Amino acid sequence: MTTPRVGVIGGGQLARMMIVPAINLGLEIKVFAEAEGSSAAQATTQVGDYTNLAEVREFAETVDVITFDHEHVPLEVLEALEAESISVQPPSMALKFAQNKLHMRQRLGALGLPMPAWAEIKTAAELEKFIGENGGVAILKTPIGGYDGKGVRVVRSADDATDWLSSDGLAKVGGSLLAEEKVDFVRELAQLSARRPSGEFKAWPLVQTTQADGVCSVVLSPAPKADSALLAKTAKIASDVAEGLGVTGVMAVEMFEARDGRILINELAMRPHNSGHFSIEGSVTSQFEQHLRAVLDLPLGSTEVRAPHAVMVNLLGTNDINDFIMNYDKALVEFPDAKVHTYGKSARAGRKMGHVTVLGSDAKKTLDYAQAAAEVLRS
Amino acid sequence: MTTPRVGVIGGGQLARMMIVPAINLGLEIKVFAEAEGSSAAQATTQVGDYTNLAEVREFAETVDVITFDHEHVPLEVLEALEAESISVQPPSMALKFAQNKLHMRQRLGALGLPMPAWAEIKTAAELEKFIGENGGVAILKTPIGGYDGKGVRVVRSADDATDWLSSDGLAKVGGSLLAEEKVDFVRELAQLSARRPSGEFKAWPLVQTTQADGVCSVVLSPAPKADSALLAKTAKIASDVAEGLGVTGVMAVEMFEARDGRILINELAMRPHNSGHFSIEGSVTSQFEQHLRAVLDLPLGSTEVRAPHAVMVNLLGTNDINDFIMNYDKALVEFPDAKVHTYGKSARAGRKMGHVTVLGSDAKKTLDYAQAAAEVLRS
Repeated sequence: MTTPRVGVIGGGQLARMMIVPAINLGLEIKVFAEAEGSSAAQATTQVGDYTNLAEVREFAETVDVITFDHEHVPLEVLEALEAESISVQPPSMALKFAQNKLHMRQRLGALGLPMPAWAEIKTAAELEKFIGENGGVAILKTPIGGYDGKGVRVVRSADDATDWLSSDGLAKVGGSLLAEEKVDFVRELAQLSARRPSGEFKAWPLVQTTQADGVCSVVLSPAPKADSALLAKTAKIASDVAEGLGVTGVMAVEMFEARDGRILINELAMRPHNSGHFSIEGSVTSQFEQHLRAVLDLPLGSTEVRAPHAVMVNLLGTNDINDFIMNYDKALVEFPDAKVHTYGKSARAGRKMGHVTVLGSDAKKTLDYAQAAAEVLRS
Repeated sequence: MTTPRVGVIGGGQLARMMIVPAINLGLEIKVFAEAEGSSAAQATTQVGDYTNLAEVREFAETVDVITFDHEHVPLEVLEALEAESISVQPPSMALKFAQNKLHMRQRLGALGLPMPAWAEIKTAAELEKFIGENGGVAILKTPIGGYDGKGVRVVRSADDATDWLSSDGLAKVGGSLLAEEKVDFVRELAQLSARRPSGEFKAWPLVQTTQADGVCSVVLSPAPKADSALLAKTAKIASDVAEGLGVTGVMAVEMFEARDGRILINELAMRPHNSGHFSIEGSVTSQFEQHLRAVLDLPLGSTEVRAPHAVMVNLLGTNDINDFIMNYDKALVEFPDAKVHTYGKSARAGRKMGHVTVLGSDAKKTLDYAQAAAEVLRS
């Protein structure tokens, strides 16, 4: 048998973290990066434009399966590859829901899955009507191109979105906007799972996430105060989404736990996700290993925990100087139990540059330890 | 601060497994390999002859510290680098003891550390005398060039070693042989540790190793029935050896537990070692991460266990066809808790091609599971 070869489009930290299980399992991994010196430079075999079919096809011919660091490869490129019998995982029929939040809401609705109230918006009048029906406020999203808080706005009147509602503004995002109920939530949760093309599905324990300015900042695994009914419900949601949308590989379902008890699907990510970084140390099988196994249609590994608690704290850039590595001397000596990850990116304020994971038996001590370690790295 | 750059001489599986923590910690790693397509090809930046000073110097100039996948780089090459103020870890003054078992025995003797009885042998008469004084049998070793059972022979008379004792034979191995007491041991143990150039030292829990035909086959962590006195003794031995020989980076001390209760130093490895592969999943800090931290003189990580028991089983090649990956489909589906590692080597009988690690709370179940997984991979 020849060594299975995985091709990853996109050279970010997710591709970088896939290199590790490829080395462990002895799989070949190649990365198609946007630029030289990307986070996944170690495995980069081609640098180019992922919207260019000829370039992507050239890369695809060197591997057995194409998968992704991000969800931005144009559907027509992926469909062309699929028409040539190239394995694309997740397939274009699933990715189309990740690339367009309106399509995602329509499909989840057809499956009867729980969501915030939502509407497609093409005019100021439609938006005013939605705001009026939803307590005087709405979350307005561009259906395409948003991530990490970009393309999202809280609006209380159509006046808050005149730019997006202009004919130019609408043209840029596909002709319409997505308005969603502003959920009064008590917390945010994420359900990580993986599915093989042949159908096998596994979920990790539910985690709780904390966002700051629209960016994931802390993940607690397992989610506190999650009873078996909640765990069963969120695992079922993930399974229904994966099957209903035809998702393969790792998927994260971000959810709100509303004050009234409803569990509502917020966002989907059809790839390893920030909410699953804890699994590198915290699970028998990390999300990155599971993703490689899933897209190659190899049997999935155990998603059991390695410790009662795992906490992940993101390291967002603080300025143009601190690459976090410069603080290893003091952070590592004070926090010998911290697992520090940095992504080989140059320093820039707000940039996702790394994370810290700590495992422990006491929830509060584990969180405090992880946050203190991150604080020293940031200082 | 610029990213610390580690240069590894040798492209085997140990260099390969160092790539993983380099990615995690965001360190740069470069490998000087003997050949294209080595186990550590992913990080190989130069292919050449490690006995050639000019080639090794060219490589050394691209990194901040030189370390090793094996102990075979000629001392004169390393001394020349050191004379040019290049950081070599472990330094030549330590490696000289790893490269010559006679020098190692002499030095351990001077430090008063426990060993089998031994003697330097230059003639048949000296060997006959040693055999006579040690129960009619001896372990005869070539002081240089031996590994994994090569360069080792059980002898009951000088007639068993006429080839090695010939003037040609002696010339090949430095002019003399090493005779050692054949220890009546109940088991073999290994003490893994790490030491920074600035002095910090940490030991992992003691492990028990089983050899087959001179090659490590199974490692149990922690060693069964190891009381606190034994653990303190072996950790102290490792600390004394590391300090006494000036070792930096990871070191494995292989020991016999004799039937009469003595703990005797068998071999030393001044690098990550097969007996420490369990630490990838089994310890908060793996031997490969610790080695990078140590050689860069960064603070060492915790060596605490991640589970009550870890078992590592080697995957030695069974024939010219089975690369173990060909059995992933059946092995991974039956053993979702097994962490399977393969080293990117082509199949060859007896070759170290990979290993399996399993963590668990029950010693026997963990061992059985790991061995059963290895058996399916081998079949």
